[in-house]
Amino acid sequence: MKNNTRYQAYRSHLQKVADLGFANAILSWDQQTYMPKNGAVFRGQQMATLSTLGHELFVDPKFGDLLDELSKDESLSAEEKDNVRLTRKDYLRKKKYPHAFVEEHARVTADAFPLWHEARVKNQFSLFEPALKKIVELKRQETQFLGYEGHPYEALLEDYEPGLTVKEMDHVFDDVKKELFPFFKKIIALPKPKHDFLTRHYPKAKQWAFAEKMVKQMGYDFQSGRADYAPHPFCTTFGPGDVRITIWVDENHFNPMFFAAVHEAGHGLYEMGLPLESQYGLPASQALSMAVHESQSRFWENKIARSLPYWKGNFAELKREFPENLNDVTTDDFFKAVNLVEPSLIRVEADELTYHAHIYIRYLIEKALIEGQIQVADIPRFWNERYEEFLGIRPPNDSDGCLQDVHWSYGSFGYFPTYSLGSFYAAQWLSTMKKEVPGLDASIERGNMAPLLKWLREKVHVHGRRLTSGELLKQATGEGLNFSHFMNYAREKYGKIYSI
Amino acid sequence: MKNNTRYQAYRSHLQKVADLGFANAILSWDQQTYMPKNGAVFRGQQMATLSTLGHELFVDPKFGDLLDELSKDESLSAEEKDNVRLTRKDYLRKKKYPHAFVEEHARVTADAFPLWHEARVKNQFSLFEPALKKIVELKRQETQFLGYEGHPYEALLEDYEPGLTVKEMDHVFDDVKKELFPFFKKIIALPKPKHDFLTRHYPKAKQWAFAEKMVKQMGYDFQSGRADYAPHPFCTTFGPGDVRITIWVDENHFNPMFFAAVHEAGHGLYEMGLPLESQYGLPASQALSMAVHESQSRFWENKIARSLPYWKGNFAELKREFPENLNDVTTDDFFKAVNLVEPSLIRVEADELTYHAHIYIRYLIEKALIEGQIQVADIPRFWNERYEEFLGIRPPNDSDGCLQDVHWSYGSFGYFPTYSLGSFYAAQWLSTMKKEVPGLDASIERGNMAPLLKWLREKVHVHGRRLTSGELLKQATGEGLNFSHFMNYAREKYGKIYSI
Repeated sequence: MKNNTRYQAYRSHLQKVADLGFANAILSWDQQTYMPKNGAVFRGQQMATLSTLGHELFVDPKFGDLLDELSKDESLSAEEKDNVRLTRKDYLRKKKYPHAFVEEHARVTADAFPLWHEARVKNQFSLFEPALKKIVELKRQETQFLGYEGHPYEALLEDYEPGLTVKEMDHVFDDVKKELFPFFKKIIALPKPKHDFLTRHYPKAKQWAFAEKMVKQMGYDFQSGRADYAPHPFCTTFGPGDVRITIWVDENHFNPMFFAAVHEAGHGLYEMGLPLESQYGLPASQALSMAVHESQSRFWENKIARSLPYWKGNFAELKREFPENLNDVTTDDFFKAVNLVEPSLIRVEADELTYHAHIYIRYLIEKALIEGQIQVADIPRFWNERYEEFLGIRPPNDSDGCLQDVHWSYGSFGYFPTYSLGSFYAAQWLSTMKKEVPGLDASIERGNMAPLLKWLREKVHVHGRRLTSGELLKQATGEGLNFSHFMNYAREKYGKIYSI
Repeated sequence: MKNNTRYQAYRSHLQKVADLGFANAILSWDQQTYMPKNGAVFRGQQMATLSTLGHELFVDPKFGDLLDELSKDESLSAEEKDNVRLTRKDYLRKKKYPHAFVEEHARVTADAFPLWHEARVKNQFSLFEPALKKIVELKRQETQFLGYEGHPYEALLEDYEPGLTVKEMDHVFDDVKKELFPFFKKIIALPKPKHDFLTRHYPKAKQWAFAEKMVKQMGYDFQSGRADYAPHPFCTTFGPGDVRITIWVDENHFNPMFFAAVHEAGHGLYEMGLPLESQYGLPASQALSMAVHESQSRFWENKIARSLPYWKGNFAELKREFPENLNDVTTDDFFKAVNLVEPSLIRVEADELTYHAHIYIRYLIEKALIEGQIQVADIPRFWNERYEEFLGIRPPNDSDGCLQDVHWSYGSFGYFPTYSLGSFYAAQWLSTMKKEVPGLDASIERGNMAPLLKWLREKVHVHGRRLTSGELLKQATGEGLNFSHFMNYAREKYGKIYSI
């Protein structure tokens, strides 16, 4: 085979794998948005079949041979070489999965989603427990055949932040516990800013109309995406020109829908900024990691949509939409209210400081489950005790406790820490951006997010998976992960809000 | 392999093929309902990959060997034997398709849908013409490797009404031309009943609310289905418990949405009546043919929802919903108006008599294209001339002419005749049902469709593909296809309406 033909064969094979993956994303999106109640019976099996076939196609030994040949091919361009290198890395990893495991994992997790959903609605952990037990067993098996150098949990972290070690993550959380926990405890003890107006009645349609405007202002393109209602907000990509978000509205609280919409649109903008079309199915078109993904969503959610310039620019508009709720509220009141720091039960509704306690608890649980230090049956007790320990509150039930997140039902173990990492990367983007983008705050205040998005596109999005997180951070900000950027940001912002 | 294990292996292999087929149906549904504009780029490729993989899985020679063995296995139950027999028939047919053809057909037709849509919106046949040319070339190739005894078109008809010959179809259309065409011409020459109230303003939401009630009255279960807006109404099945319909509303005309909703729900009820769960993926769970499918949809649309008892029962409700449009209208006026016979341009809006001229024209075009008697470029002229010949009207543009139907963009050649066949089967169901279901009209008038649906379930739905159409007709009605039932129905109903 000629080199050119060989790369073409590689490319079209990967595109088929991508087709199956995107198709599965569509089935999953439909499952969570529009599927009628009785449609659940075979949906799990359908999704399992697609992922099993995708896996089989990917680990085809002939494809492995092709990758071996291509990896020695010096005539490829730098981008082509990166694609081959990363695909080969994935291939060698995926190759370790026994066929029966893939099938079982796909089936078990696909069936687990409706069980989790029911358990959460009915507030009954026991409905989800057997499925979760199976999932944890599978994850423990997975660490065994994937292998690891330090801690077994690292075998799973690899899927969400390649190369991340438990030692590094522990180190980050040590800093979080040492610096951030005392900081938010100090704030929690202070009198709260006024915030009752956030829990007035905000009708669904008007909430969405406002959020849609704000999401458009960010640069999210509704010709290449859409938003639909789902019980859990998420962002999903079906291919170039089709990056969707889902939303969920609480009519008696402004925050949940609005900040989730901005968060998911942040994910969406990252996907829309990847070379999805020209590099369809290839690593160069893929997000670097979930941690970098969260560095985008949480950047928009907290660094932008919870900033003073943002509300200086947009509060008048919001007030016009909801005069009955906000006519006695100033921009400054509103800014302070959406940054209210207080211990809470639900991760996705937590403020950006106590949020990391939520993550830390999940991280401890996942690590302990994978180590075998605790069992699935111990989760509710372990969860509630840690909430009491770190946040001083105890969930009154499991729906507001260990059943609140969808992740485990998907078999996602290792995802949670990326929310914290992403937040800390985001602080680092902001700190560099402030130096490199002149008049950033003024631009945000004018509702012009283009300079900001341009920086993210050029420094982060465009690279796809071609750099590691370490390389990306270094290249974009001049240094590796440095938690002090987050603490500086927190001290400055909350220092002003709470006059400390 | 033990017999039992062998049947299990057969069953789970077919279920995988079904998973891919249903997944593809979801992608197609999304393409037509919710997909954002720019999402089209790779959707065609994604759908093509799923159908190619499904095809490859199905024609796997090892599966063929398994079918050979099973077909000799006398220990199977009658149902199992039927499943094996029908799958083997499909296998031998599908086996004839060259791999490259399957891939090309899937790609070309998936890409053709947005082109057809654009051509129709912009009223520009030339935008669709190159794609349609490719499709017709493919269909002609298809007849060659599938083979046929009489006419090449029969190779394609097989997909929609197995065993149907051009000679039989010509014979049916000869009767249609001889008996039905003169009959509707006579009616067209008479004064029209009052019908202006059908084209008053019927707001979208209220139209749908009424249709939803009527669709529920039929027995369509919204826990196992749903309705969404799409530019072309259709019914699609994603598995047991998930049979969806799509609708499209014209706010200035009552008919299009209402009768399409009933029509699609009629398809839906057939699917819901199949043993989709217990026989998932197997022939026993599949519809017999498109002709039988249309015999269900057109039965509900015309034999029921355009009957006098139906409106005697439901008109008061409709009037309550739209008093401003209907307060000067009686039940009898309304019944007559929805049965207005007049030549028209759009097939899906045609009355149930002139409808068959629309079908006949498409049948002639398809036959001529497959024979090579006409070329794709000739379609608009040929189409317009035949409309003039049979209906006395000429489409002013191609959007209202040869671009109106989606079928050819899917590569569906041979589907159209089933609309006529289905209508004629439907007349035969009705004529038997009237004898076998006591008080049928009174029950319809009371809004109780259960006895009617029960008859359809027991006589038609439950058999899946296990009988041929001929056997089904014979078993349910005591005779094969007999066009005189339709003419008797037409003469009786329209004789009263037009006093002839």
